[in-house]
Amino acid sequence: MDQIAIADKPHVALARLMRDEMAAVDALIRARMVSEHAPRIPEVTAHLVEAGGKRLRPLLTLAVAAMCGYRGDNHIRLAATVEFIHTATLLHDDVVDESEKRRGRPTANLMWDNKSSVLVGDYLFSRAFQLMVETGNLRVLDILANASATIAEGEVLQLTAAQDLGTDEAVYMKVIRGKTAALFAAATEVGGVIASAPEASVTALRDYGDALGIAFQIVDDLLDYGGSTAKLGKNTGDDFRECKLTLPLIKAVAAADDTERAFWQRVIGDGQQKDGDLAQAMALMQRHGTLAATRADAIGWATRAKAALTGLPDSEIREHLTGLADYVVARVV
Amino acid sequence: MDQIAIADKPHVALARLMRDEMAAVDALIRARMVSEHAPRIPEVTAHLVEAGGKRLRPLLTLAVAAMCGYRGDNHIRLAATVEFIHTATLLHDDVVDESEKRRGRPTANLMWDNKSSVLVGDYLFSRAFQLMVETGNLRVLDILANASATIAEGEVLQLTAAQDLGTDEAVYMKVIRGKTAALFAAATEVGGVIASAPEASVTALRDYGDALGIAFQIVDDLLDYGGSTAKLGKNTGDDFRECKLTLPLIKAVAAADDTERAFWQRVIGDGQQKDGDLAQAMALMQRHGTLAATRADAIGWATRAKAALTGLPDSEIREHLTGLADYVVARVV
Repeated sequence: MDQIAIADKPHVALARLMRDEMAAVDALIRARMVSEHAPRIPEVTAHLVEAGGKRLRPLLTLAVAAMCGYRGDNHIRLAATVEFIHTATLLHDDVVDESEKRRGRPTANLMWDNKSSVLVGDYLFSRAFQLMVETGNLRVLDILANASATIAEGEVLQLTAAQDLGTDEAVYMKVIRGKTAALFAAATEVGGVIASAPEASVTALRDYGDALGIAFQIVDDLLDYGGSTAKLGKNTGDDFRECKLTLPLIKAVAAADDTERAFWQRVIGDGQQKDGDLAQAMALMQRHGTLAATRADAIGWATRAKAALTGLPDSEIREHLTGLADYVVARVV
Repeated sequence: MDQIAIADKPHVALARLMRDEMAAVDALIRARMVSEHAPRIPEVTAHLVEAGGKRLRPLLTLAVAAMCGYRGDNHIRLAATVEFIHTATLLHDDVVDESEKRRGRPTANLMWDNKSSVLVGDYLFSRAFQLMVETGNLRVLDILANASATIAEGEVLQLTAAQDLGTDEAVYMKVIRGKTAALFAAATEVGGVIASAPEASVTALRDYGDALGIAFQIVDDLLDYGGSTAKLGKNTGDDFRECKLTLPLIKAVAAADDTERAFWQRVIGDGQQKDGDLAQAMALMQRHGTLAATRADAIGWATRAKAALTGLPDSEIREHLTGLADYVVARVV
């Protein structure tokens, strides 16, 4: 992974290859955000869309469609669709998490109100729905309908699993499939479907997206504790403070002795936290090696993502998709 | 309309005609509410679904499909779809309105929390999406996607129009099309589409649903002021207290002199209400005849709904649908 430091990041290289299509996706997103009746809608969404982010999901759809030789413009609609779904879930997540910051800017629920976030999220989801119907491809609709159900189910599961020390790794996997991997998998799968790729390739692309999404989310959850070296910065410890049972913590609870278990019960189960508790939690995770074990899990999923691609024809895009799986886990040391 | 008092109510007669199909819809709704991963979901939805209500929207889809001679089972899926969409919007509405009661029972947001209402609403919407995709009918998907966008847009518009004395009847129409008529119109239109009814019939069915939904919502808004006789009961005045500009009030603001306008500005625009303001608002609406004018508008829409049906072949179901338009406005005197 050493070459990543000197070469382009893989998603940057992909975005350059796909720059015309990404510009078309941006234009489509802007055009469909507009509501002649309700000016609040573009206000709220522009705030989110302008904030940018890496646009990783639409990029995956475009890259996969191009890799599979697609000729047409439905990949633009589908890329905009997955970004709209992603943005809609962010708006609802911020309400549910009572977040005040997203990508370093105040969240929509803070700038306007929770009501606007709920309703504009619904609007974006309905816009996504219209866009995918325009492709006229029932299989694509089926994939995205199932992904939507998995996402919604995962969000509810995350809510009910919060502060529940009985949350195990199986529940965690369901939560992060809903939170992240379902949309990654749908984004890559629809790219293959729209290009009429062979069934084996469609399955491989779906598996790639799923494994990449899982690796991505595990790394995200690990970074919330500063990575496997447990360096605390100003952006670390949010999940701990919100009593969320992510993988490093689930592993620590599973390895806990009675004293440690009482600690986890107080700070997570009962949500009674005081100064020094985060440092103590980190020390326990270090003692049981759960941060390193979490990183190993992420690397395992990145390996599965890369393996899924090996049956596909070699191409520049395939190389970048492989590189992206490495890059996702290289974020954390 | 005198015979309504002695004969069955039209929706009761329709429900009896469609009882086997309605039972199938109920069974499908129950089956699809279930989530093996997230038990909170059936808890929240059972609470709403058990509470019942008239199931008017699924009944319209079933009745129209039967009237158009449909043979198959996609009308069951579509009826469940519209009920899921309706229930999802109720869950999100209750969060937005901060409601504490729905159909005489505590709302889900009160019994659980706003988070559950937001996420379970999303889940129901995704379930609706899966059900409609199962019909394999792209035109039906297009109709329901457009209805979803109109609903979401109307909800945002209602939010931004609240307390805005500049809200006119044109804005009000957009709000109630989103709030009610769009789903009524989609419910009747998809019934015709799935039965491969002639284009003229599909248009007529859509127009019927649209006009029926508008009449229904105008009556609902009028009943919030006790009807055109302005009788206040324990369930009246909610819209006034929430500073919502519904039709009787919009007409009163349009007819206001300077003194009256100052009153409306204080109680609605600024939301500064005190004892006696509701009685004063009612007196102003009576003085300008806006409650009677609102009732006349509702009757006009019911007449349009009935007129839309005249081009369709005569049948028992058509008679009940015509009767339903009369019944909707007969609720208010």
